[in-house]
Amino acid sequence: MGIIYRVNMSDLTARAEPIEGSAYEALGGRGLTSALVAAEVPPQCHALSAANKLVIAPGLLTGTGAPCAGRLSVGGKSPLTGTIKESNAGGMAALALAVLGIKAVVLEGAPQDRRLHRIAVDRQGVRIEPADELAGLGNYETVARQVGQFGDKAAYVSIGQAGEMRAAAASVAVTDVDSRPTRHCGRGGMGAVMGSKGVKLIVVDPAGGQRIQLADPDAFRRAVRRFADALGRHPLTGQTLPKYGTNILANVINEAGAYPTRNFSQGQFEGTEAISGERQHDTILARGGVIAHGCHRGCTIRCSRIYVDDQGNYVTKGPEYETVWAHGANCGISDLDAIARMDRMDDDFGLDTIETGATLAVAMEAGIIPFGDAQGAIRLLEEVAKGTPLGRLVASGAAVLGKTYGVSRVPTVKGQSLPAYDPRAVQGIGVTYATSTMGADHTAGYAITANVLGVGGRVDPLRPEGQVALSRNLQIATAAVDAAGLCLFVAFCLLDDPAALEAVCEMFSALLGRPFTGDDFVALGKRILTDERRFNAAAGFTAADDRLPDFFKTEKLAPHQITFAVPDEELDTLFNFAE
Amino acid sequence: MGIIYRVNMSDLTARAEPIEGSAYEALGGRGLTSALVAAEVPPQCHALSAANKLVIAPGLLTGTGAPCAGRLSVGGKSPLTGTIKESNAGGMAALALAVLGIKAVVLEGAPQDRRLHRIAVDRQGVRIEPADELAGLGNYETVARQVGQFGDKAAYVSIGQAGEMRAAAASVAVTDVDSRPTRHCGRGGMGAVMGSKGVKLIVVDPAGGQRIQLADPDAFRRAVRRFADALGRHPLTGQTLPKYGTNILANVINEAGAYPTRNFSQGQFEGTEAISGERQHDTILARGGVIAHGCHRGCTIRCSRIYVDDQGNYVTKGPEYETVWAHGANCGISDLDAIARMDRMDDDFGLDTIETGATLAVAMEAGIIPFGDAQGAIRLLEEVAKGTPLGRLVASGAAVLGKTYGVSRVPTVKGQSLPAYDPRAVQGIGVTYATSTMGADHTAGYAITANVLGVGGRVDPLRPEGQVALSRNLQIATAAVDAAGLCLFVAFCLLDDPAALEAVCEMFSALLGRPFTGDDFVALGKRILTDERRFNAAAGFTAADDRLPDFFKTEKLAPHQITFAVPDEELDTLFNFAE
Repeated sequence: MGIIYRVNMSDLTARAEPIEGSAYEALGGRGLTSALVAAEVPPQCHALSAANKLVIAPGLLTGTGAPCAGRLSVGGKSPLTGTIKESNAGGMAALALAVLGIKAVVLEGAPQDRRLHRIAVDRQGVRIEPADELAGLGNYETVARQVGQFGDKAAYVSIGQAGEMRAAAASVAVTDVDSRPTRHCGRGGMGAVMGSKGVKLIVVDPAGGQRIQLADPDAFRRAVRRFADALGRHPLTGQTLPKYGTNILANVINEAGAYPTRNFSQGQFEGTEAISGERQHDTILARGGVIAHGCHRGCTIRCSRIYVDDQGNYVTKGPEYETVWAHGANCGISDLDAIARMDRMDDDFGLDTIETGATLAVAMEAGIIPFGDAQGAIRLLEEVAKGTPLGRLVASGAAVLGKTYGVSRVPTVKGQSLPAYDPRAVQGIGVTYATSTMGADHTAGYAITANVLGVGGRVDPLRPEGQVALSRNLQIATAAVDAAGLCLFVAFCLLDDPAALEAVCEMFSALLGRPFTGDDFVALGKRILTDERRFNAAAGFTAADDRLPDFFKTEKLAPHQITFAVPDEELDTLFNFAE
Repeated sequence: MGIIYRVNMSDLTARAEPIEGSAYEALGGRGLTSALVAAEVPPQCHALSAANKLVIAPGLLTGTGAPCAGRLSVGGKSPLTGTIKESNAGGMAALALAVLGIKAVVLEGAPQDRRLHRIAVDRQGVRIEPADELAGLGNYETVARQVGQFGDKAAYVSIGQAGEMRAAAASVAVTDVDSRPTRHCGRGGMGAVMGSKGVKLIVVDPAGGQRIQLADPDAFRRAVRRFADALGRHPLTGQTLPKYGTNILANVINEAGAYPTRNFSQGQFEGTEAISGERQHDTILARGGVIAHGCHRGCTIRCSRIYVDDQGNYVTKGPEYETVWAHGANCGISDLDAIARMDRMDDDFGLDTIETGATLAVAMEAGIIPFGDAQGAIRLLEEVAKGTPLGRLVASGAAVLGKTYGVSRVPTVKGQSLPAYDPRAVQGIGVTYATSTMGADHTAGYAITANVLGVGGRVDPLRPEGQVALSRNLQIATAAVDAAGLCLFVAFCLLDDPAALEAVCEMFSALLGRPFTGDDFVALGKRILTDERRFNAAAGFTAADDRLPDFFKTEKLAPHQITFAVPDEELDTLFNFAE
C-alpha cells in the first residue's frame, strides 16, 4: 500500500505506480532514493540532463506517529560531486506525502525549454501546472504567493534563484511548521537537478490523508512510547538540543581545537564566544524570539528556534551549528546578526549553507574579499540572486570557485566542501569525509560522537587508531536511520541506550508485520551503502577519490599541531563488510 | 651528455644534474616529461601545489639538425584535467635549450608569496631573478621588454595574465623566429602550473651552444637528407601545408560533415568559405602578409604564416585550423578578422585557443551572448585580461564555465574541450578523444588521417569498425614522435612513406650509436603511454573517464544523422598492448 508518482517533465505527464510488488517495496527515505537512483539513473549521465532523476521520498517511519521521523529524502545524481546523492531535511513535506500514501515523487526527463512548473500533489493525484510567474523569486516569496491558494496546512518544496540557475550548491527547500522555507536538503546541488527538470515548487496538500497503516498498532504504540522516553532521558536530545540548539557545539568543538577557522587554517577561533549557541540562546530570548521549536510536527527534540532582530522581527530560523561555523569562524566572522542575515539569504536563494560558507572562505583565501569582512560576504551572497558571474561562482561551490581563482587550499572531497569539524583534530570525521559515498559529509558517519562527545564510547580524536571501524559502523547505522526518516539526532540515543535501538526495531516490526532485529537494521544500512558504492564505481569513482585534500596531510593544525594520519590503506578497508 | 636543471621555487635555488646514469637517460620531449612526472609527482596532489612539477624539455632529436624537430614539451599534472599532461609547441626555445646541452628544466616547489620571477638560462647556468615589474602584462609586452636586454637570438618561454591567475586554460607561450610569443603549449593549463611556481618567463640564450653530439654524424646526415626528401615529396607536407597552412582543413572537414558548429550542434557551417584556409591565403597575400613561414629554424614544412590587417600591419600569426574553428564555426562566427583578433588576444593573455573557443561556445549555449556575436566574444575575452569573475571563468575552460552556468551540453573529456572534429562524423578521432591520457586531444592520435585524408590507409569515418585499432596505433606512434621533438605533421609522411620512418629510425641510431628499429619506435611510444596511464590510474581515472559526453551518443549530428557508436567495451581495449 503506497504509490510512487512518476512525473515526466519531458512530456508533462504523471502516472501512479504501486510500490507493492515493485523492487522498491518496504523501502523509504534514503533506502528508496538510493535504490531507485542506482537502478534507473545511468551513472555517467550529466546530472543536469534528462537522464537524471530526482527522487523525493519520506522515510519508512514517516506518518506512523513515530517521534522525530519527519525527514524528507531527496536523491539523484549530484551535479556538485558526480556521485549518487541523498540529502534530507525536516519540515512538513515528508509527513504530508506519507499520509497521502505517497512513497516517492520521481521527477524524470526534462523540458526542452526553460519554462517553470508547479507540481500540485493532493489526494486526487498530481497536477503539473505552469509557474513562469515565479521565475527569479526566492523561496520565501515563492511560498508566500502559494499559501493564499493552498493554505498553511500544505507543505511546500521549492527552489530559489540558485536552483533555477542550476547552480551546484543549490538546495531544495522544505517549509517548516510555520510555512517558512527554512529546512533544506542542502548538500550536493539537488536544487539544481530540480531546476533542470523545470520544477519551481511542489505543493503537497495532506487534506484527507491518514496515518500509515500498521501491521500491529498496539505494539507500535508501545514502541513509540519507549522510544520517546529514551529520547527524553538522553541529556543531548532531552535537554541540551532543545535548550541551545545545534550551535551548542561551537564552544565544544572550539575547545577540542577542531573548529575550522579561516578556511581550515587553524583549529580555534578567537570569536567563538560571540557566535556560540549559548550567546544565540541569550540573544533570542532577550529579543523575544523562540527556542525549542520543532521543525515538523511529531518532533520531541525541538532543536529549531526562531531568530529575530533587535526589534523583535523575524529574520530566519535559528542558524544551525554548521551554518554559524561556515559563515562565521570559517570566514573569520564573529557577528551573529550578519550570520543570521546570510542564513536567511541562503534559505531564500536556495543554497546549501555549508557549501556557501565554505565557498565564501575560499573566496577570501583567493583574495576577493578579506577574511572577517562580514559586509563583503553579504555583498558576495547578494550577487547570487542577481545571477552575475561572481554570484554564479559563489553558488557553484568551493571547488569550482577555487579552480576558477587558482586556489590550491580547497577543502573538498569529491567536490563537496568539508563541514564544521577539522579532520586533523577529529580524525574519525576525516575518515567519514574521505570515504562517504556522498562526498565530504559529517552526517554520513558522525564520528564526533565517540571522538568528542563521549557518545557511543570513546575513541581518541587525535590518533588514527580505531577511526575506520568507528566511521564504518556509523555510516552503516546512519544509512538505516536515513531510510527510516528519523532525524539523525536520535542516533545519540541509539548509540548510548540499548532500549532506544530496540524500540526502533520494534517500530519496524510492528509496521511491517514481521520480526525486525538490530541485525536487520545493520543489514539495511549495508544494503544502502552497497547500492551507493556500486553507482559511484560505475560513475568512475575509485579509492583515489576517497581521500582528503593533500594539505590536511601536510599542514599542521594549531593548537594540536597535528596532521591527518589515517593511512590510505586503512581508508580503503572502510567498505569491507559482508552485506 | 646533457643536464637537467632543477629549479626549486620554494627556496629559489637551482642545481644541475647530469642526465647520464639517471633514469631519464636517452629520453627527450614527452618521453622525458612523462617519465619524470610519473616518477616524481604525487598523482593525487593539487596541480597548483608545491608538489607538482613543471618539466620543460626539448625533443630527443632537437638540436641535431633533423628537420622539423624543434618541438618543446611541457609536462606536469594538469590543473584542467587532473591527468598527467604533455603539451608541445614549436618556436625557438627547444633548439636553444638543446644546443646548451639542457635536456630539461624542471620547476619544483612553489613560493610562499605571489611574487614573480624570471629564470635566465645560458651557457653559464641558471639565474632566478625577481620579475614583479612584469605582473599583469600579456605575453607580447612581457617579451618585448626583455628583447632589449637578451636580444633576438634568445628564446622566451612565458605566461600571460591567464597563467598568472593560475587559470586552467592558461598556456605556456614560446617565441617564434621573430621573437613573437605565437607558439603555445596550449592544452591542459600548463601556464597555470608555471604561474603557481611564480615564474613569469624563462629566457634561454643559446649563445655559445653547439649542435648535439652524434654517434655517427655521416649516417645522421644521410638520414636527414632522406627524411627531408620524403617530407618534400608528400603532397601534404611538401605542398598543401606550406601553401595554405593548417586551415586548409576547414573546407575538407566541413565537406565531411564533421566541422563542429555552434557548440557541436551541427556538422557543417554555412560560413566555412569565409574562414577557410584558401580565403585566409588570399587575404594574407592581398594584404602583404606572409605565407610559408617556419615557426622555428630547421622547419621544412613552414605551415606558419603572418596575418596582417587591411593596412598591412601585423596582427598575429596566421590563425591555425583549430583556432579558426574554435572561435569561428563553433561560435557561429564567420569573420576572419575577428577570429585573428581573438587569436592575438589568446596568445597575448596566454590562453589555449581550443579551450578558449570551446568555452566561448559554451558561454553562447548558456545564453551569456548569442551564437555568432563576434564583438560579444571579443568583449568576453577582454574580461580575461581584466581578471573579472567572468574573465576568470572564460580562462577556466568549458567544463567549469558550463558547470557554473548549469549547461548540460559541454563537449569535454576529462575536463578538456574537444577539438575541431565532431566525433560522430569521424568516429576514429572520437576514440582518441575518449581514451587519450591527456583528455580530449586530437594530436594524441590523429585519426583524421585514415578517416578523412586517406593517409595511412582508409577507415570509414562513419562506422565504429576499426577505429580502436586505428587510434591505438596512432597514439603509440604519436607518443614516440612527441618524444623525438618532431612536429606531428611529419606523421603524414611517416604513415604513407616507409622511407620516412626508416630515415627517422636511422637518425635515432646515428644519434644514440646503437641500432634503432621501427619496433624500437613503437616500444618507445608504448612505454610513454604506459607511464601516463599508470599516473592517471593512481590519480583516480578509470574506464568510466574514457568516455565521450552522453550527448554524442544520443543527439544525431547533421548532415549524416549519426551518433557516436564505438562500444564502451571496445574503447576499454585501447591500451591492451604488450609493452
